[in-house]
Amino acid sequence: MLTYDFTKGEGPLYQKLYKFIKDDISKGVLLPGEKLPSRRSLSDNLGISTVTVDNAYDQLAEEGYISAVPKKGYFVAENLTASFSVEKRSEFKAKSKKKKEEYDFDFSISRPAAESFPFSVWAKLTRENVAGRSEKLLEVSGSSGIYELREAIAGHLSSFRGLHASPDQIVVGAGTEYLYGLIIKLLGKNKKYCVEDPGYRKISQIYEAEGVKHAFGRMDESGLLVSELVRTKADIAHISPTHHFPTGITMPIGRRNEIMSWAYEKEGRYIVEDDYDSEFRLRGNPIPPMQSMDTMEKVIYINTFSKSLASTIRIGYMVLPEHLAERFYEKLAFYSCTVPTFDQYTLSDFIKKGYFEKHINRMRHQYTRKRESVLEIIKRELEGVEYRIIENDSGLHFILHLFTKHTDKDLENALKKRKIKISAVSDYCMQTPEKQLMGNFIIDYSNLDVSLLPHALNALKECL
Amino acid sequence: MLTYDFTKGEGPLYQKLYKFIKDDISKGVLLPGEKLPSRRSLSDNLGISTVTVDNAYDQLAEEGYISAVPKKGYFVAENLTASFSVEKRSEFKAKSKKKKEEYDFDFSISRPAAESFPFSVWAKLTRENVAGRSEKLLEVSGSSGIYELREAIAGHLSSFRGLHASPDQIVVGAGTEYLYGLIIKLLGKNKKYCVEDPGYRKISQIYEAEGVKHAFGRMDESGLLVSELVRTKADIAHISPTHHFPTGITMPIGRRNEIMSWAYEKEGRYIVEDDYDSEFRLRGNPIPPMQSMDTMEKVIYINTFSKSLASTIRIGYMVLPEHLAERFYEKLAFYSCTVPTFDQYTLSDFIKKGYFEKHINRMRHQYTRKRESVLEIIKRELEGVEYRIIENDSGLHFILHLFTKHTDKDLENALKKRKIKISAVSDYCMQTPEKQLMGNFIIDYSNLDVSLLPHALNALKECL
Repeated sequence: MLTYDFTKGEGPLYQKLYKFIKDDISKGVLLPGEKLPSRRSLSDNLGISTVTVDNAYDQLAEEGYISAVPKKGYFVAENLTASFSVEKRSEFKAKSKKKKEEYDFDFSISRPAAESFPFSVWAKLTRENVAGRSEKLLEVSGSSGIYELREAIAGHLSSFRGLHASPDQIVVGAGTEYLYGLIIKLLGKNKKYCVEDPGYRKISQIYEAEGVKHAFGRMDESGLLVSELVRTKADIAHISPTHHFPTGITMPIGRRNEIMSWAYEKEGRYIVEDDYDSEFRLRGNPIPPMQSMDTMEKVIYINTFSKSLASTIRIGYMVLPEHLAERFYEKLAFYSCTVPTFDQYTLSDFIKKGYFEKHINRMRHQYTRKRESVLEIIKRELEGVEYRIIENDSGLHFILHLFTKHTDKDLENALKKRKIKISAVSDYCMQTPEKQLMGNFIIDYSNLDVSLLPHALNALKECL
Repeated sequence: MLTYDFTKGEGPLYQKLYKFIKDDISKGVLLPGEKLPSRRSLSDNLGISTVTVDNAYDQLAEEGYISAVPKKGYFVAENLTASFSVEKRSEFKAKSKKKKEEYDFDFSISRPAAESFPFSVWAKLTRENVAGRSEKLLEVSGSSGIYELREAIAGHLSSFRGLHASPDQIVVGAGTEYLYGLIIKLLGKNKKYCVEDPGYRKISQIYEAEGVKHAFGRMDESGLLVSELVRTKADIAHISPTHHFPTGITMPIGRRNEIMSWAYEKEGRYIVEDDYDSEFRLRGNPIPPMQSMDTMEKVIYINTFSKSLASTIRIGYMVLPEHLAERFYEKLAFYSCTVPTFDQYTLSDFIKKGYFEKHINRMRHQYTRKRESVLEIIKRELEGVEYRIIENDSGLHFILHLFTKHTDKDLENALKKRKIKISAVSDYCMQTPEKQLMGNFIIDYSNLDVSLLPHALNALKECL
């Protein structure tokens, strides 16, 4: 007869009994097909109630360890083959997890400064939503996001970017990376995508991970060359005409027209217009996006709140041409929106109540002042150094061109030894960079610590 | 000479001038290659300052509408081909956007009741985070999510599910739908996925949208048949052994072992174990997940907070076998985590401070009571009707089997006319449902309005 020590283990009696018997089955103490004692005899033997035995047997039966044969009793199941692992806490640490490099200073860090996030307003709006809209917060939003937010974005785009879209053309998602995936699902896996070279490596990594064909298109001083779209036999041009990273190029109207004509020429061709930091054009009027000059439904406009608010709130959106919006609702509407409704409502209020506009204006002023002091400090500290500032009027970085015999990599490594990070445009080249791209270093002032800048610039000077 | 009426339009003078000239270029009033008046002559002619003309010309040049030729002046650009659309607010409404059916009562609605969400605790934790961790909230989390949350989930899984994983095996993402996409990227596009039939249509829709091969595997009363995995030549079995939807089947240990053996047999075979509502096993001990019996790194465990908290917070997670965790960090770590850090920290505190456990216990009691009253009302209202309740001890629904001559569809349509929604197991069949699956209707009591239930049941009775 089975005998167990009930002083061991935790939990209610029936659970201990369940575990004892399960262990015996796992260890082979009880064999497949073996009959278990009747509930009454086991309860008598162990000095526990029949209800306890019932509960333990019930659970074992339910999980398939034993089975009940009517009028005969319980038997150990026949088909228990796989072995059970011994339970222990896993201490596994992923080796391939990259450790963050520790730097004292970073010329290229691109993210809004923490102190500038409008925490108090954000917290207030969140609180108001929880208090006043709790039902709404738990209602599943459509695949494209809640209407209120899409409406708020449509309004923002209309007044800030001269882009006139209806809320039904707007799809909200957990960041642009997620939205790229949706675009691929929308346009088809058999398309070939052309990305800008140099450019964000992540965009091509995503196309790679999604298993679609992609190519790198070279640029000149006006941006992506149309001849490259032709050479690579691309169907989709993925570009950032407002402000290209890392070169800072704003694509002139002529090139925009050429690329638009290329898209108009053939069915199935599209332009993905990545407008990731258009809010921070610090001088002059914002240049209208290509989407607003598109008369043939060829441009998918995509933007994010990563630069204008915070990348960690993970909200991006895209504006689809009408026929693609229809296709989205036909084919992909089964997907849930990836952004929590809580955050959607908060952001929607943030825009509609005018806080976003205020925030952008405040940040523009802040960035303008910062840009000026950064330029001033560079002028002062790099005296005697041969350099040139390549300005561009949008976005939050400019290019520091150094006339030096050192290669970009050498300079980066020399600074790395002093715990200073600097990135060059050539780091973002996928193919061998052309000569005129060398010596161009990225100065992103959005989150740059001005008080440490003189020290970092002096280190740079010493490395030259 | 160009002459414009500056009383029209809005904004600063230079912007008006910019727009006037741009419009003239768009309309062909100014032709490609045409020389523009000098800044001085235009300023004299229009009675505005030269700075205003400078600013307007600068912006036009920057956008490529005009170009400066040194010592000659400004000329309209040569390569302006595409036409410009007239700006107007788009009134587009997607036709293919499905209208929500309006029902007075829904037997199958599956989502936690709004009144049960722990809003006050959630708001308190959010507030504390904003006050005490604002820097952290803006720091980009790794691709798998913040460590604190992965640690909290590991602790929860260990104590609630007997699943012992390290935080490095856990990947957090914006819902299970998003995580399915990551799994595909991790295992490869060339794998064949087998899903349960009947089952959630969405899972196969996602495999379809992702462009991977998938098949439907038939089930018996123990769950997915191993013979179906063999027949469909599947590499990956996507199953929900704890609680299958819609049949409610809990896979017994024998079948689990068989499927595990199938996976062990061949390299590249895996099991996706979808444990979506395991927290709500209302009777007996939770059945340990297959992940905890896996000794050969074959099981990817996936779960969500959709059922245990709210689907609209969009947080899911998966536990990867160690070699797949390594592969994730090698190949997919460039992806940003799709969940906002704000929500990650709040959830992490919610679990670590014991609120999640309390919430689950509270919900268990609530659901147990609700289940009992629903069963009681059915017993009372369906007197005289031939039916059987097919119980299962986990999850938040059971099956009402009706002995009736009506087809499932007929009954559904008859009730639809009365604005009552009921779903049958056969609705979730991808292939022709087998006879024994007919007549089974889903009663989800998680969000069911008990006060309206008698009325709905009487309507059902009248339709029989």
